[in-house]
Amino acid sequence: MSDQIDLPDFNDIEQAHVRIRDKVRQTPVLSEPGLDSELNCQLFCKCENLQRTGAFKFRGASNAIARLRERGIEGDVATHSSGNHGAALALAASLDGRTAHVVMPGNASKFKIAAVKRYGGIIDFCQPTQKGREEGLERLVAAGHTPIPPYDHPDIICGQGTAALELLHSHPDLDVLIAPVGGGGLISGTILAAAGKSIELYAAEPEGADDTATSMQQGKRVETVQAVTIADGLRSVVGVRNFAIIRNGISKVLTVDEDAIRSAMGEFWNHTHMLIEPSSAIVIAAIRQHPEHFSGRKVGVVISGGNIDPSDWVSLVRTGTTQ
Amino acid sequence: MSDQIDLPDFNDIEQAHVRIRDKVRQTPVLSEPGLDSELNCQLFCKCENLQRTGAFKFRGASNAIARLRERGIEGDVATHSSGNHGAALALAASLDGRTAHVVMPGNASKFKIAAVKRYGGIIDFCQPTQKGREEGLERLVAAGHTPIPPYDHPDIICGQGTAALELLHSHPDLDVLIAPVGGGGLISGTILAAAGKSIELYAAEPEGADDTATSMQQGKRVETVQAVTIADGLRSVVGVRNFAIIRNGISKVLTVDEDAIRSAMGEFWNHTHMLIEPSSAIVIAAIRQHPEHFSGRKVGVVISGGNIDPSDWVSLVRTGTTQ
Repeated sequence: MSDQIDLPDFNDIEQAHVRIRDKVRQTPVLSEPGLDSELNCQLFCKCENLQRTGAFKFRGASNAIARLRERGIEGDVATHSSGNHGAALALAASLDGRTAHVVMPGNASKFKIAAVKRYGGIIDFCQPTQKGREEGLERLVAAGHTPIPPYDHPDIICGQGTAALELLHSHPDLDVLIAPVGGGGLISGTILAAAGKSIELYAAEPEGADDTATSMQQGKRVETVQAVTIADGLRSVVGVRNFAIIRNGISKVLTVDEDAIRSAMGEFWNHTHMLIEPSSAIVIAAIRQHPEHFSGRKVGVVISGGNIDPSDWVSLVRTGTTQ
Repeated sequence: MSDQIDLPDFNDIEQAHVRIRDKVRQTPVLSEPGLDSELNCQLFCKCENLQRTGAFKFRGASNAIARLRERGIEGDVATHSSGNHGAALALAASLDGRTAHVVMPGNASKFKIAAVKRYGGIIDFCQPTQKGREEGLERLVAAGHTPIPPYDHPDIICGQGTAALELLHSHPDLDVLIAPVGGGGLISGTILAAAGKSIELYAAEPEGADDTATSMQQGKRVETVQAVTIADGLRSVVGVRNFAIIRNGISKVLTVDEDAIRSAMGEFWNHTHMLIEPSSAIVIAAIRQHPEHFSGRKVGVVISGGNIDPSDWVSLVRTGTTQ
């Protein structure tokens, strides 16, 4: 099956970077010796939490919209999203003179709902299931809007890969790269951006939404997941194109439990004074829980997003309340 | 009087930068079009909230410690601080193989107490008065430790000025620069860093601790202030050297009320996904409250620190509770 789908490559990532580099923020790469000594490795954190709209998703959305513009496709766009892709697409569309229509599950965080609205997106609420999301999107497409899927699309994958491309430009001597995996847009783009380099790649996934880990074990993409995790950005099933790239592109999917994600949020904040969402802190948790892959090495880390309401952060980190 | 005190100049700032540039983080300068359009100017935020120890204070502390090392002065150092300078000095001393002894008021925030300890500082608690602090410091100096004052010292001023120096290196075409004023270490260093450039300079100060504004009006430094403000980093009286530099170095001290500081904390977070402390958000509030100095211009902003517990941020921004 993977032979028949359109998979991008390293050159596509480079072209995406040329296309979007004036639209996205060249996010900083931060290191913090205090965190390094706790984790016994040297971290280089690509801070996509400081990207516009607060997440790497703005890269993929900007690339997808720019590609529509190149091909002369006008009109509104549509997607389904638990939040970050929706907000990113809303802003990218708005900057190109379009409107984004976003199917969101009724249980999406209020904060993420507000963000989609702030950037000019129009929300269609749906049942919090994969089926609910897909049916909602079908309705919007039937109404004439161009669908921009959140992760399983070459333009999205290439846009997301530009974060690792920038990280590798400024830090070409990394030993390891790690990024979270939900739908797989970020990790698959990261894999392509690292093509040809002798870098080990890992994905971090919540134990409560471990479809990619299971897919790797079974050698075949599982098609459903009963996601139970505070990492709301990682509840999706890994995409078809994404898994086709991931299956041969990474050393391992490292799974992490919920308490470790909470602790990592607090630890990251103590050391860097940045609030990051659970879906991002999972990489720090994975490094702590699986030190055998990271100890003593130079580790590139994509900090994927900072879209969490500070009240929710306090609840999760300080009292252990579920989001 | 200002003729008789030792005041640093631009060259001293440049030398300080050479001295500490490998010790401090070259913090990113971020712009966010959404925030720009709300404030009707183009902001370039020098993010010292992402500096090591979470505040610009690490620059001054690093410079002061490096100067001791240059002069062959060994041994422990001492200061009094409500938090940020103490934590910064603790880390700077520890990296130089020394211990910092920090006199802190018994009512200092638990968060800031924990930070001083995390970086290896030893805390001497005192009564929460200027007298209590000074007597505590005198005891430490009598015990043989070298005092490192928080702002009224040439080495501290020069270290703090390196933040604006870096900002002006990367963005030489700014029209205006603004920084908060408490004791005046940051703004006086900023003034020296901008020497010889045609840039307007402003300081932002809480209405509830407006000793610098009053000193400017009276043409003479006032020596006490009854500070009532959530901006805990701006409760000090402006220093002697600091005021000597400030009085002819800035266009105006812009005062800001407490509600405006709270709103600015929320606004900054909405647009940039960074939590900053009240003492930093005050510059954003000043730009909003005094648009006549900023509209349509390129504005350099020193975001001074991010040392606020997320729970306290939530209390201040969401419920308006005093800290």
